This record gives sequence, C-alpha cells and structure tokens, in this order.
Amino acid sequence: MLPEDQAAAVSFAATSLPGQRDHELLEVAEWFRNVPDMAEMFASCIRQAIDEVLDGQRTGRFDISHKEEVASTEKTYLGTKVEIIVRAAFRLPRGAKMDYRVAGHDVDAKWTIGSNWTIPLEANGHICLLMSASDRKSKFRIGLVRIRDEHLNLGKNRDGKRSLSTMGRSAIEWLLQDGELPENTLLSLPDADREAVFQSNSGQARINELFCRVQERIVSRSTVLTVARQDDGLKRVRDARRHLRGKGIIILGHQDGHPDIAMSLNLPVPKKGSWVSACVTEVPETSERLKVAIGGRFYSILGRVGDVPAAPSHY
Amino acid sequence: MLPEDQAAAVSFAATSLPGQRDHELLEVAEWFRNVPDMAEMFASCIRQAIDEVLDGQRTGRFDISHKEEVASTEKTYLGTKVEIIVRAAFRLPRGAKMDYRVAGHDVDAKWTIGSNWTIPLEANGHICLLMSASDRKSKFRIGLVRIRDEHLNLGKNRDGKRSLSTMGRSAIEWLLQDGELPENTLLSLPDADREAVFQSNSGQARINELFCRVQERIVSRSTVLTVARQDDGLKRVRDARRHLRGKGIIILGHQDGHPDIAMSLNLPVPKKGSWVSACVTEVPETSERLKVAIGGRFYSILGRVGDVPAAPSHY
Repeated sequence: MLPEDQAAAVSFAATSLPGQRDHELLEVAEWFRNVPDMAEMFASCIRQAIDEVLDGQRTGRFDISHKEEVASTEKTYLGTKVEIIVRAAFRLPRGAKMDYRVAGHDVDAKWTIGSNWTIPLEANGHICLLMSASDRKSKFRIGLVRIRDEHLNLGKNRDGKRSLSTMGRSAIEWLLQDGELPENTLLSLPDADREAVFQSNSGQARINELFCRVQERIVSRSTVLTVARQDDGLKRVRDARRHLRGKGIIILGHQDGHPDIAMSLNLPVPKKGSWVSACVTEVPETSERLKVAIGGRFYSILGRVGDVPAAPSHY
Repeated sequence: MLPEDQAAAVSFAATSLPGQRDHELLEVAEWFRNVPDMAEMFASCIRQAIDEVLDGQRTGRFDISHKEEVASTEKTYLGTKVEIIVRAAFRLPRGAKMDYRVAGHDVDAKWTIGSNWTIPLEANGHICLLMSASDRKSKFRIGLVRIRDEHLNLGKNRDGKRSLSTMGRSAIEWLLQDGELPENTLLSLPDADREAVFQSNSGQARINELFCRVQERIVSRSTVLTVARQDDGLKRVRDARRHLRGKGIIILGHQDGHPDIAMSLNLPVPKKGSWVSACVTEVPETSERLKVAIGGRFYSILGRVGDVPAAPSHY
C-alpha cells in the first residue's frame, strides 16, 4: 500500500503534497493580493451580484436569503452571477478546464450564501476561489483552497457534490476573512421603519419616507430603485429634495459640491449612484458646532450630540 | 369505472371538462388580449430577459442557446427572469398557489427556449401561460393551456416534470403564435461580419466596425454594450460618429431630430436606446432621389437601389 501522501499524489496529479507548501496556490493568492483595491473590488462584485438577482426595481425584494420570495433557481444562479462579475472586474481569462486562469493556473469559482461550499467532482485536484457573504451581517469572505479528497466530507448530494470538510476549511488560504460588504439598507432597517417606508402605494411617498427614516447613512441606487419600483426611480430622489425641504432634510448626492458639504458635516460621503440625507438646522456664524456654509448661511446637523463642545464647568 | 371525463374532473377539481369550453382560461386570455400593445410588451419582456441573462457587457455573449458559453443554471434562470419581467410589465399580482393572478385566476408562468415545455406536478389542474422564443428566428409564442393528465406525456424527468403532449399542444389557446422578437443583431450577422466586428482589442474600434458593417438596421443598446464590453459603451457610439464621418457614415439616435432624418431617408426609426447607421452622399437639391436636408445640404443613401425613379425608357 502506498503511504497516504503518495496515494493523494497519485489520485490528484496536479496536487501538491499535504503538509507541503502549495506553490501554485500561493502564486494565485499573490496575484489577487497584488490587485490594488482587491477588497473593494470583491465587495462591489458581490454587492452587485446580489442586487442584480434580487432585481429590486421589478420585484421590491431586498433579502436574498428569503425562503419564499427568492426561488432556488435564483439562489443557484447567484453563484453564476458572482462568477461572471468577478471575471469581468478582475479581467480574468477562462481556464483550460476551470472558470478562470489566474497567474497561469486554473481556478474554479465557488460561491455560497451559507457557511460551506459544495464542490463538484470535476474540481478535484484544482484550486478553488471560495467566496461567501452574509448580507445581513454586511460581511464577506474570500479564500483559496486546493481540492483534495481529504478536504471534502464523505456524503454526496444528488448532483454528486461534496462539502468542504473541517480539514478542508482549515486548509483555506484566506485572501479576506472579514471583508466589509456595502450595507443592504433595507435589510438592516428596523421592521417599523421598513414597514413605514413600504406603506404607501406612491413611489414618491415611499422615497420621501426612505430619506426621512434613513439619515446620515449611505443610500445606494439599488435601494432607491427597490423602494421606488419604477423606471424613474432616480428622478424620485430629485423630487424628494423638494418634498423634504420643509422638514429641514437635505439629500446629498455625488455632484454640485455635495460631497464637500457631507465632509464638512462629518457625514458619509456619497459616491456616484448613492445619496445621504440629514436633518439640518440653521446656526449662527459664531456657533462652535460642526457647521457648513451654504448660500451665505450656516447649517448644523439637527440634534446630533457631541458636536457642541461641553460648556465650561465652573459656570 | 368512471368515464374518462369524470375521472379527469375528479383528479383535477379545478379543471373544466375536456371538450367543454374552459371559461376561466378564456377569461385569462381575454384579460391579456385587452392589454394595449400586448404583443410589443411580451416581445420586449423576452428580449430584455435574454439580454440580461447573456449579460453581454460583461461576457461578450450574444447566443443564449450556446452550449459551452451559457451554463445550464443560466438557461434555467432565464425562465425565472422572464417570469419576473412579465409580472412587472403587466403588473400581475401573485396567485394563491401559482406565479400570477390574472382575471381572478391562478396562472403559472412556463418558459422554454426549445420547442416544448416541461410542467411540474404542482401545476396539475392549473392554467399555464406558455412562453417560448427562438432568438435566431426572431420569433416568439405565447399561449394558455389548462394542465390535465391527458395534456402531458407519460415520461417524467429527474424532477418529476412532464412535457406537454400532442393533445396538450393542440389544446393551447394561442395569444400570439407568430410574435416578432426584436432582432438580435449579432446573432443574425454573417460570420465574416461578426468576426470583423470582434477582431480588435479596442472597444472603440469594435463599435466603429459594428456601425460600418450593420447599416440601415436598428442596433440596440444591448448590442452596443456587448460589442463595447465596458461601462462607457454608449459613449463609444458618440465617438464613433466622429470616427466614421470621413467614410460618409452617419449614426442616428432618438434625439436631436435624428428620427426625422431616419424617416425622410426611409430608414428604421431609432427609439430611445437604439441607433441606425447609414452611408450617405450629398446630392443636388434638384435630385429626385429620396433625400433629406441637413444644414442646408441634401443627402441620400449611397448606393441604394430603387430610390431613383427609372429613367424614361425612350431616351
């Protein structure tokens, strides 16, 4: 009988031996780590894939793990969408047998919205790019693993796929273990606020309510389209400015000096396709509160604590 | 033993008896037929679903039936995407058990890119909205059928689904049997033209080649994005005008009086998100050719036959 190491080497010719450093896998890891903004790119790919499958503008959905609203075909397809978007974002060519060619090596893309990955038979011996996310926790993970027999559990599902074993999971070379996924605003909203947002039959009223309830936080294009559920979703944001002005609420976008105003008020700064709203109040030029000059007047965030320096303690 | 008709009625309580008019199904048919532009709406839903799954901007793909380029998960998902887009376009609420509620009746959406539909067990007794298309032929079909045992073939696939039998197909109440699907330009292009379009590594060069090779035909946004394969795909069209001017080629869009020019020259008229190119030549104001005045000069389509009235035959 062959020693276990040699047996593994025989069954998976391309595999480095267990216990040895897997140079091919480390070359793939290095390739990804050398991509500037790798974390932001993966984050944006996963966010985009989830949002596209939810298709909020048409469906009003915002929870990819929803049992009734999201069909199993859609959950399966999400993995394909992630694979496509990552390929395009990182400009990866197709591999000889696997999804990608990275640093000269075949790499298979494997996605899960759960906690483990299921690996098809044909990935045996190959390097897998493992990707997963929790939209509720706004977190994602990216790792690399070489698929060997001892990295997989014994049980197979109907399609002959096996899940990664404890040993397989401990063998993962992590690229990002605690990645920050852009927030899914509607998913993270307290139920009462979300119900208030979705209460009206009017898209404009829903958008108004959204920017009333979600203040000082980035609101994405995708959130706006999901709430508005119409082709003119973005115009509803522009109109919301007029509707909310009387309530002291401003909605800052990425143009017309808005990012500067956001920065001056210590708000998150909106990039293209995102907004941030805040309730402001006029303050005197001499106010020591964090303030911004707009049209010759000065404004601070209404009711924000900590902006005003404590009054001297002896008076 | 029960007569066959009664047996069917027992097994599918909701079913009208064979040979009788199915009033529920006819009410659903009437509801759809009363939608203005029903044909255009279904055509645009199917076109949109195919284009979104192809995701040409990221993948460069244009053939949804391609065996290697389009994964089986994507082919399955296409049915879900059609279902979602049709629901949104026709503003259909969800049924009690099936996908849609139409005219007070549950209706299940069933899509196929092939020639037959596979029907799951749970659709038994229900009305199905049958949808199919051939992107290569630019045709689609929409029909309604009540699922009964005798409308299905005996054999089941792995998921327990059965295909529609000859009797089932003859029972279809057609809403559209010969619908015109907006053309998939890249799919319909002769191989040599398509290869010429995709030859260059430069997105701008590919777009230039597209509008040189595809003249006097509508080119959609989706075709442009598939050829350009970049975020700025639409800007490449604007720049192509400059590049192609020297060759006498104009690219007409939906704004700035372009549709009027298209109409004057008897070209297809571009709507929003589409273009039409043509090679023009200056002609004298007195020319009897079909011509259009632009900036005080007159232009006709270069080399088009049939525009010039036949010369008098005796001279």
